[in-house]
Amino acid sequence: MTFIAVPARLSTSSADFEQQFAARLHWSAEQDAAIEDRVRDILADVRTRGDAAVLEYTARFDHLAETSMAGLELKPDELKAAFESLPSIQREALELAAARIRRYHEWQKSQGGETATYRDEDGTLLGQKITPLDRVGIYVPGGKAAYPSSLLMNAIPAHVAGVGEIVMVVPTPRGEKNPLVLAAAYVAGVSRAFTIGGAQAIAALAYGTATVPKVDKITGPGNAYVASAKKHVFGTVGIDMIAGPSEILVLADGSTRPDWVAMDLFSQAEHDELAQSILLSPDAAYIDAVQREIDRLLPTMPRAEIIAKSLTGRGALIHTRSMEEACEISNRIAPEHLEVSSEDPHRWEPLLKHAGAIFLGAYTSESLGDYCAGPNHVLPTSGTARFSSPLSVYDFQKRSSLIEVSKVGAQKLGQIARVLALGEGLQAHAGAAEMRLSS
Amino acid sequence: MTFIAVPARLSTSSADFEQQFAARLHWSAEQDAAIEDRVRDILADVRTRGDAAVLEYTARFDHLAETSMAGLELKPDELKAAFESLPSIQREALELAAARIRRYHEWQKSQGGETATYRDEDGTLLGQKITPLDRVGIYVPGGKAAYPSSLLMNAIPAHVAGVGEIVMVVPTPRGEKNPLVLAAAYVAGVSRAFTIGGAQAIAALAYGTATVPKVDKITGPGNAYVASAKKHVFGTVGIDMIAGPSEILVLADGSTRPDWVAMDLFSQAEHDELAQSILLSPDAAYIDAVQREIDRLLPTMPRAEIIAKSLTGRGALIHTRSMEEACEISNRIAPEHLEVSSEDPHRWEPLLKHAGAIFLGAYTSESLGDYCAGPNHVLPTSGTARFSSPLSVYDFQKRSSLIEVSKVGAQKLGQIARVLALGEGLQAHAGAAEMRLSS
Repeated sequence: MTFIAVPARLSTSSADFEQQFAARLHWSAEQDAAIEDRVRDILADVRTRGDAAVLEYTARFDHLAETSMAGLELKPDELKAAFESLPSIQREALELAAARIRRYHEWQKSQGGETATYRDEDGTLLGQKITPLDRVGIYVPGGKAAYPSSLLMNAIPAHVAGVGEIVMVVPTPRGEKNPLVLAAAYVAGVSRAFTIGGAQAIAALAYGTATVPKVDKITGPGNAYVASAKKHVFGTVGIDMIAGPSEILVLADGSTRPDWVAMDLFSQAEHDELAQSILLSPDAAYIDAVQREIDRLLPTMPRAEIIAKSLTGRGALIHTRSMEEACEISNRIAPEHLEVSSEDPHRWEPLLKHAGAIFLGAYTSESLGDYCAGPNHVLPTSGTARFSSPLSVYDFQKRSSLIEVSKVGAQKLGQIARVLALGEGLQAHAGAAEMRLSS
Repeated sequence: MTFIAVPARLSTSSADFEQQFAARLHWSAEQDAAIEDRVRDILADVRTRGDAAVLEYTARFDHLAETSMAGLELKPDELKAAFESLPSIQREALELAAARIRRYHEWQKSQGGETATYRDEDGTLLGQKITPLDRVGIYVPGGKAAYPSSLLMNAIPAHVAGVGEIVMVVPTPRGEKNPLVLAAAYVAGVSRAFTIGGAQAIAALAYGTATVPKVDKITGPGNAYVASAKKHVFGTVGIDMIAGPSEILVLADGSTRPDWVAMDLFSQAEHDELAQSILLSPDAAYIDAVQREIDRLLPTMPRAEIIAKSLTGRGALIHTRSMEEACEISNRIAPEHLEVSSEDPHRWEPLLKHAGAIFLGAYTSESLGDYCAGPNHVLPTSGTARFSSPLSVYDFQKRSSLIEVSKVGAQKLGQIARVLALGEGLQAHAGAAEMRLSS
């Protein structure tokens, strides 16, 4: 079967550019009310009945008929055996990737603040104390989208932050375990692992059951049920962002080989029909060349059908007036992955305000960042890079403010607090401040 | 009318302590399904009809019949006039508080990372770029719980982070404007302000209307409708935490005057019947002394009824075996406000893992922190200090990863990425890495 990939061709000089651009970008994060209702029921049931409910849902949805939770726990030996049974080339790749990811996140930790304080002129001490979370849960999707790299990207920052216990959940429909996922769990070092998934796994982690320990935060991607469940338990536990479809935006000045850029667009498109690949270039002939490479390379791709659907349905090749204008449009999109495929990427980087990760220069394919460059591949999607950040060590730490008001300081602060508290009608607040004023 | 406040008396030595403790702590964050449905309708309506819907809901819920959005906008002159009409003592208190809050948050900004990068041994550049959000919305509750201090605590960190535009919304039921809130908006420096509230204000900020600009993130406390609306729009925009009832936990070694501690417990209890005040001390006679001060001081409090209900319904005075045990229990609670009322607070602080803000020593009443010590008073409630942090400058910034793989680096990384991508069945990812390998 032959597939063709025809991304929309837009030009910022066209009169109808804004309209076409908006139509291409449109993606609704609206939730399916039926899924939400179903998830609410599952969460309530697991909260009430614990392990028994988890076992039932796992039997029903994953066709995994275990009579006790022990049968749904992956023991350390099994993770280790999975690692050892891999071909050495995969073992090495996992270990090298893990080492690079660890090194980057250790650097990142050193960039964020340590516990620190200062004293003001009255001797009052102010500051913040930074501590790791006690226990986190990591959701790892199972089935066809089983990504061992995702496990590394979630577990390693938690480890580097100093989290005491990492609990992994991964559905194994019909008992099919992915040896690379188990091996990655061994390499990343998870504390406990369960072969459960869906809303029932999120509920077990958020509320705890007799067997599954209650965690403080849940991270990791999942399907619509998992996303809805995470949103529901937000507040009971912390969660990472809710991921939308994956996106890549390539800003090209025409200096990178067009087959490289075509393959980079594919590498996003192959994830999912809803994934979005966009090329922006002021060079129309270059855009033509990339389209020719798309046509030439597509038949060689095993996932050609998904790539064709994604590029034709959501892809775009946009001719801009200039690289400057391309940067402006990129800021409006706030892409998850942003490749600056230019001879002089550092000229454009300062113009780029909103993006999950910025890949500079022709050698920096997004796929290198996905696996092993070091920075996290869990990135804000669907324009959320306007207000959120890559998953990081900081997501596995929290801060407590430290305040020690000196006797001298209490005289000054007490006067201010008293006036403002009375203005708000909070007399006990005013009273507590007043009592500390020297008589 | 006379009120009595009888916090539960517990002892960790009692056989039924765990049971009693759990019952006291129980608070359910479960949402009201009727509120959720109502909010969903309002959000959808504002999203579709924009200003017209906002005007209708404001007329219906706030009894504010304006025919155009211009009537619901507070102009800079009006904010300035509100400030100038205040008594000088209030003007000064607002300005001094703002200056201290600004100074702390500037220090905090310096503690968090700047944009930074490093190069590995292959010349590959890795790092992160830190940028402020473009535009944020601040929700300020109106009516009886109108807190100007809350406006300072939300707007100043946004300013310090470098946010370009700050849009404030504040409901003014029946047109009643709180001059202190307007004055605080002047002092903190908001860009635009609208007299709208409830789910309709959250919708206007999240989706934008013809008049209200769409923001990137919404912070600030509100009632159950506002909390539900924020949770719904999470993902379209960023949000801060969902606040539960306020709590204080006092760890006392018996060295602080018992009337001071009694007043500190009141200052939490006066917020709300659901607020929780807990005292932990190894000194039973001291606990008795605090109860006597509660009895003595309560009749002097204008908000005695709320205080009595809060303390009797949710308060607790807990006798512990030791200060060490008191610290352990505090960690289980993960309180929003934690006073270490001890002669030697620095002895206990290292034992305290989870708390929003830690107030050290007898002079550091929570109320000083609420208004003017400097650190943020927007703190994680209901045990969420286990995984979240005070509102901060960092909440108004976001990070983008920076990656520039060198030609040499692409050879090493390409081999690793290729193996892992093929292991995940993502051939275009492998292809993009392979193409960068030198032939």
